[in-house]
Amino acid sequence: MNTTPPRETTDLDTPERAQALWQKDKDHFIHPFTDFSRFGTHGCDIITESEGIHVQDAQGNRFIDGIAGLWCVNVGHGRREIGEAMAEQATRMAYFSTFNNLSNVPATLLADKLADLAPAHLNHVFYSCGGSAANDATVRLVHYYFNRLGKPSKKRIISRNNAYHGTTYMAASLTGIASNNWDFDTLDHLVTYLSEANCYRRPEGMSESAYCDHLVQEFEDTIARLGADNIAAFIAEPIMGAGGVLVAPEGYLRRMQAVCRKHDILLIADEVVTAFGRLGHFFASEAVFGVQPDIINCAKGLSSGYAPLGATLISDDMYEVLSRPQGPGGVLSTGFTYSGHPVSCAAALKNIEIMERERICDNVLEVGPYLEERLATLSRHATVGDVRGSHFMMCLENVADKTTRALLPVEARVGDRVADEAQARGLIIRPVGHLNIISPPLIWTREVVDQVVDILDQALSATTDGLRADGYL
Amino acid sequence: MNTTPPRETTDLDTPERAQALWQKDKDHFIHPFTDFSRFGTHGCDIITESEGIHVQDAQGNRFIDGIAGLWCVNVGHGRREIGEAMAEQATRMAYFSTFNNLSNVPATLLADKLADLAPAHLNHVFYSCGGSAANDATVRLVHYYFNRLGKPSKKRIISRNNAYHGTTYMAASLTGIASNNWDFDTLDHLVTYLSEANCYRRPEGMSESAYCDHLVQEFEDTIARLGADNIAAFIAEPIMGAGGVLVAPEGYLRRMQAVCRKHDILLIADEVVTAFGRLGHFFASEAVFGVQPDIINCAKGLSSGYAPLGATLISDDMYEVLSRPQGPGGVLSTGFTYSGHPVSCAAALKNIEIMERERICDNVLEVGPYLEERLATLSRHATVGDVRGSHFMMCLENVADKTTRALLPVEARVGDRVADEAQARGLIIRPVGHLNIISPPLIWTREVVDQVVDILDQALSATTDGLRADGYL
Repeated sequence: MNTTPPRETTDLDTPERAQALWQKDKDHFIHPFTDFSRFGTHGCDIITESEGIHVQDAQGNRFIDGIAGLWCVNVGHGRREIGEAMAEQATRMAYFSTFNNLSNVPATLLADKLADLAPAHLNHVFYSCGGSAANDATVRLVHYYFNRLGKPSKKRIISRNNAYHGTTYMAASLTGIASNNWDFDTLDHLVTYLSEANCYRRPEGMSESAYCDHLVQEFEDTIARLGADNIAAFIAEPIMGAGGVLVAPEGYLRRMQAVCRKHDILLIADEVVTAFGRLGHFFASEAVFGVQPDIINCAKGLSSGYAPLGATLISDDMYEVLSRPQGPGGVLSTGFTYSGHPVSCAAALKNIEIMERERICDNVLEVGPYLEERLATLSRHATVGDVRGSHFMMCLENVADKTTRALLPVEARVGDRVADEAQARGLIIRPVGHLNIISPPLIWTREVVDQVVDILDQALSATTDGLRADGYL
Repeated sequence: MNTTPPRETTDLDTPERAQALWQKDKDHFIHPFTDFSRFGTHGCDIITESEGIHVQDAQGNRFIDGIAGLWCVNVGHGRREIGEAMAEQATRMAYFSTFNNLSNVPATLLADKLADLAPAHLNHVFYSCGGSAANDATVRLVHYYFNRLGKPSKKRIISRNNAYHGTTYMAASLTGIASNNWDFDTLDHLVTYLSEANCYRRPEGMSESAYCDHLVQEFEDTIARLGADNIAAFIAEPIMGAGGVLVAPEGYLRRMQAVCRKHDILLIADEVVTAFGRLGHFFASEAVFGVQPDIINCAKGLSSGYAPLGATLISDDMYEVLSRPQGPGGVLSTGFTYSGHPVSCAAALKNIEIMERERICDNVLEVGPYLEERLATLSRHATVGDVRGSHFMMCLENVADKTTRALLPVEARVGDRVADEAQARGLIIRPVGHLNIISPPLIWTREVVDQVVDILDQALSATTDGLRADGYL
């Protein structure tokens, strides 16, 4: 069986053709999160090929992928057996509705498998096509849940500053990153934000333990102010992702869960990034942080990004309410045409099979601490204020002054500078404002880590030189 | 090249194993639109195989697929070349971010192709994973558009009763089907509903032309009441789909567009169902209805359902505003991890290639009128009050009394009865309340139409008998 024909001559075999493709992209493709002050002139790098830990662009440049696509490609690129599983399912039964009284084999087997992998009390799976839709659907389901319980005032969702939960209208409203809502609207009547748990920027002189007390107290105070009767749920990424890979103080999530329980507030764990091995376990909530959320959302690593897929895992207690027979004409009127898409679910089943067979979580548990340790050495650079994260979810915070933690001016574009310097040396990492995120495929070895840290070391030196030359340092 | 191995022995080769799979589904898979008064006992039919116009279930029963999966599988089931294109792309480059300054080949080529197929003024493509997310993203983009134009009060979206626009929180709010919001909440401050255009149930004695005047006047009156300064857009399916395949009076959409233009209100065409050939054209708005929407949303037929994909096509005028350089820190902060997913876009490119090569739109233009004509003969049945639709988008409306158009009681479940009788005879059609929807793959021939109408003829006779036996007629 051979699903991949010899690489054909594409229309990218000359610089002119690559340029023509670049122009089509610029003319017709509206990219997520575009900065139009640059897009008009810079356009896009087009990624054309990938294999293992590498990707390649239309100009033939090859890079180590330091972001796993976008926290996605956990088992690495070019897994032929996933493509074959998708092709087989697409030919056998590519699509049929899963509404109400219809189902398909891969969606059923995957739901069963997810119930098996997830914490014991989470046995019910609602599918979507990604993290945004999973978080969005969760809010609908949570509101429905409290309506059915006769508690229709419990509607408000507590989120956090700098949280990232996606970009449907509702998911963008849950998102607490200020720049994400530049000239966009949000549903302010349904969401309240707490402070993020940011140990690096916690109040001067406050111990981590006192900082944790402070954050938990803020939650209690917010509940007292809004009234528990008006609050439906608290949503949190176990480690905040796009908001800056923020690892909360020890015990934070357990204590936040205790507050939720006390006030009949559901705990939603957004594990779109942390699930499927990034922290060394299929799900991090219980295994790493010791909490039992009412709902866990996952996506990305669920299929290693080979096909769009998201899943919302719901507790037995919550399902008991959701599954109560409705009144006349009532149906659980949520879900998507592509909920439980057979091909996406087949990709996920194969992805999980690979993760188990190759013991990929074990690799993360072994190599992750080494990545943390090696990256920590970069803090000797003048601009590196903080190196943080856990296992294969890491971040550098760049600053102007390591003592005061003052930031460089936005126009210095320090995150872009570091990413550009790394990319020029064969490594893609992600700039987010003044931060750089490293979230690799979970198959990096110690040797790759050494290579990556060497590149970053050079990239940071070059960045410091550039910032000095431009008068920013 | 052979992507499909010989069909392996699945775990469904005995009734016990099929039953075990059915149980897993019931225990773990939360289906969209589940009626829990029946799910607990009935569970799901599991569709396991498909080929051309047929699907097969876990018990080995074979059916003509009369719903194209769910308005999706336009080129028919089992297209090996789509599976192969997906496998090739999955192996070559399954996934990389398309955020901001990154792109991939299939997403770029598809954006270019869509700009080519769409009406001339629609040249900019924003990707998502399906219709719900496309409609949801559209509202965010429309609000952003008016914010950037300095018209922040233009926020309200005008939709219609019985419209179906999906089930994200926002899309569900745009949806005007009352039963869809049974114990779910909606964003009432952002949406106002007009009457649907329902020729069958228009006021007694009113001509179709006078009815059209009446609907347009209702729109004008609503604008006068709310103020044009508070209205952002009017969203409409060119033919209303899940709301009952409602074909508006001649000229309705053109006149609604004229009202939009007069009041600086954007026109959003939700072509999730009508695009990609269902009415005989790649896009129906201009080719069939003579309108030039500011935005067209599509999904479903775009990939024939082989992979999750949605697309929002945006006009040059609107893009000029969306693409203006933002202020410091601003980005177009919308879009999804899987926006422009390479594998989904590769599936869509192959799907469009097949549609063009096999001239599938021409088949719809030729066989569609025959389907309409043959289905019309079913109106001789006592319960068939209306046979309506256009081309491969058809509906039967079942009634208790053809003169008064009175409905049967909900508990008669007439739509379910007709669907069950048809399924017992080898045909899947879709029950929606008292309606039955027929939305086949676009490859049905006249011979298949004859076979289908024969089955429906028998199914309707059996339904009438059953309703009489149960005292409903």
